[in-house]
Amino acid sequence: MILFRADYLRDTATRIFQAAGADPEPTSILVDHLIAANLAGHDSHGVQHIPGYVRAVQEGRVQPNAAPVVLRETPVSALVDGQFTFGQISARVGTEVAIAKAKSAGVAAVGVVRCTHIGRLGTYSTLAAEQGVVLMVTIGAMLPATAPFGGRKPVFGTNPFSFGFPAADRPDVMIDFATSTIAAGKVMLAQAKRESVPPGCLLDQDGNPTTDPKALSNGGMLLPFGGHKGSALATLAALLSQVLVPAAETGGGQLQTGTFIVGIDAGIFREKSKVEAETDEVIDQIKAIPPASGFAEVMVSGEPELRTADRRRQEGIPIPEDTWAAIVATAHGLGVAIPTAT
Amino acid sequence: MILFRADYLRDTATRIFQAAGADPEPTSILVDHLIAANLAGHDSHGVQHIPGYVRAVQEGRVQPNAAPVVLRETPVSALVDGQFTFGQISARVGTEVAIAKAKSAGVAAVGVVRCTHIGRLGTYSTLAAEQGVVLMVTIGAMLPATAPFGGRKPVFGTNPFSFGFPAADRPDVMIDFATSTIAAGKVMLAQAKRESVPPGCLLDQDGNPTTDPKALSNGGMLLPFGGHKGSALATLAALLSQVLVPAAETGGGQLQTGTFIVGIDAGIFREKSKVEAETDEVIDQIKAIPPASGFAEVMVSGEPELRTADRRRQEGIPIPEDTWAAIVATAHGLGVAIPTAT
Repeated sequence: MILFRADYLRDTATRIFQAAGADPEPTSILVDHLIAANLAGHDSHGVQHIPGYVRAVQEGRVQPNAAPVVLRETPVSALVDGQFTFGQISARVGTEVAIAKAKSAGVAAVGVVRCTHIGRLGTYSTLAAEQGVVLMVTIGAMLPATAPFGGRKPVFGTNPFSFGFPAADRPDVMIDFATSTIAAGKVMLAQAKRESVPPGCLLDQDGNPTTDPKALSNGGMLLPFGGHKGSALATLAALLSQVLVPAAETGGGQLQTGTFIVGIDAGIFREKSKVEAETDEVIDQIKAIPPASGFAEVMVSGEPELRTADRRRQEGIPIPEDTWAAIVATAHGLGVAIPTAT
Repeated sequence: MILFRADYLRDTATRIFQAAGADPEPTSILVDHLIAANLAGHDSHGVQHIPGYVRAVQEGRVQPNAAPVVLRETPVSALVDGQFTFGQISARVGTEVAIAKAKSAGVAAVGVVRCTHIGRLGTYSTLAAEQGVVLMVTIGAMLPATAPFGGRKPVFGTNPFSFGFPAADRPDVMIDFATSTIAAGKVMLAQAKRESVPPGCLLDQDGNPTTDPKALSNGGMLLPFGGHKGSALATLAALLSQVLVPAAETGGGQLQTGTFIVGIDAGIFREKSKVEAETDEVIDQIKAIPPASGFAEVMVSGEPELRTADRRRQEGIPIPEDTWAAIVATAHGLGVAIPTAT
């Protein structure tokens, strides 16, 4: 592990993406997303993606300077075409449309197609909650990554969900989880750190349990969390973001994953201030529960990420050596000099 | 266990509720709900509730003949006051409003307050999916039933979610789960059957693991499913149905749980027939996965309930002796004669 200051990583990532041909504005949105993911402790969605994203630009799978457009809309819905720019940009546009329509109409449903990898979903639910909008966002696909409950071959992606709910004086509630037991990015990270994954997360290519992260790229698969319940949510994510949202029909090919977003104004049924104040009360009730053996305190969803970000702003962001070496190699391939970290 | 034909249970339940003062129409909706839950194999939401519901009517906590009213609405939202009639009736009205508004506007959010116990959530998502509407319904509360992840005192109800998604020729997808590892009704049922509950579901009053269902009524608590993920969903259910929906402010007292429903027309982004046809394809992809060791086949959400209903229509519905004795005692208390089962 090497510790880097967030500003150093932001500057490095910015110079790499601009050298790869991205304009300043899309670079800024993308890099902010990556660094925020690392700060929050979700390194699986952070700078480890730089080499892959640069390769996608070089191979024409990502059009870094394309601008998302609205294909069709009503006062309560919109279908956004991401035009294969960075998914973090398309999903942000989709979220902003959902927030605006939820504020004006009360509730809105937005689909994003041709959107590539959108990164950490919690980014979008946080953005909405900050503006007083309850958000659900999901991205799901039928991909050979996760086995269904009771099966021994993969059929789902990691099909995550995120939800944001605005509080008053407390931090907003931010829920973000893969419907697989573990995120694919966390398996990549365990492999980079040369660590095992916990038992119950992976099957090998023959359908047998394993803790070796390399099994995933060798024909193995993830398991859904919570048995049939996680498997049901993985199914739902695929139906919402790849079937309800016409991702396959519109996007085609390997990049057919869509994004599905629902925004609900927190004031849809009564004054928003009362909703936010009662959210604080719910948070306080949960925080007042005495911890179980092995826990220091009960945490509310979103709290671990805020704690980690506070710590990493002070202490730096730990990056595995292999990950850093791959980023440096990508930079050198683009003729970008990497200054010594300070 | 005693096996009863569905028609016999329907007739018996109908005569009991009418003797308790319920008019034919609310009785019919309530009894259909209970029998459908038993047929689907979810006995926790079936006729075992008859004694409790009759007691609630006798004590004035349920007004069986009250009619739900819409307190406020827009083209995409409504707040329904259940007027403390049977929750199965209030939630059905809320669902019908959500379906109608989703069909006309594309998407709708509905809250139901003063709605008492609404029974099996899958009933409502099934109703919507049959009409080509994607539905999410949740009911959640801050109640001393389920511990948060990392805690040793209860703070949540069982806070379930259900989702419906329409298919074309295949059965619609119907997802329905408690965010606790096990539903409270299933613990009641295990107690009636004098069985244990599986390990990992319950803590006793001191926060220690137990498999004794009686622990729940002796100060014990349920655990959330899937660790922090289930705990997050339990938090979300409470925020959506008790805070966003102004259940506490509107309902007051012990019956303050609200219901939150989002309906989305399956044709919101493109022709509904394409969505339903692609849903069939997703179902077929899941069904094609070879079963893991210990499983005969991979099941899609909603399929186990349909199988059980087919079987129970033929073979009858099994009711534990204690449950049946309590129903008979309730009937006799109302002067209702119970004919011999045929």
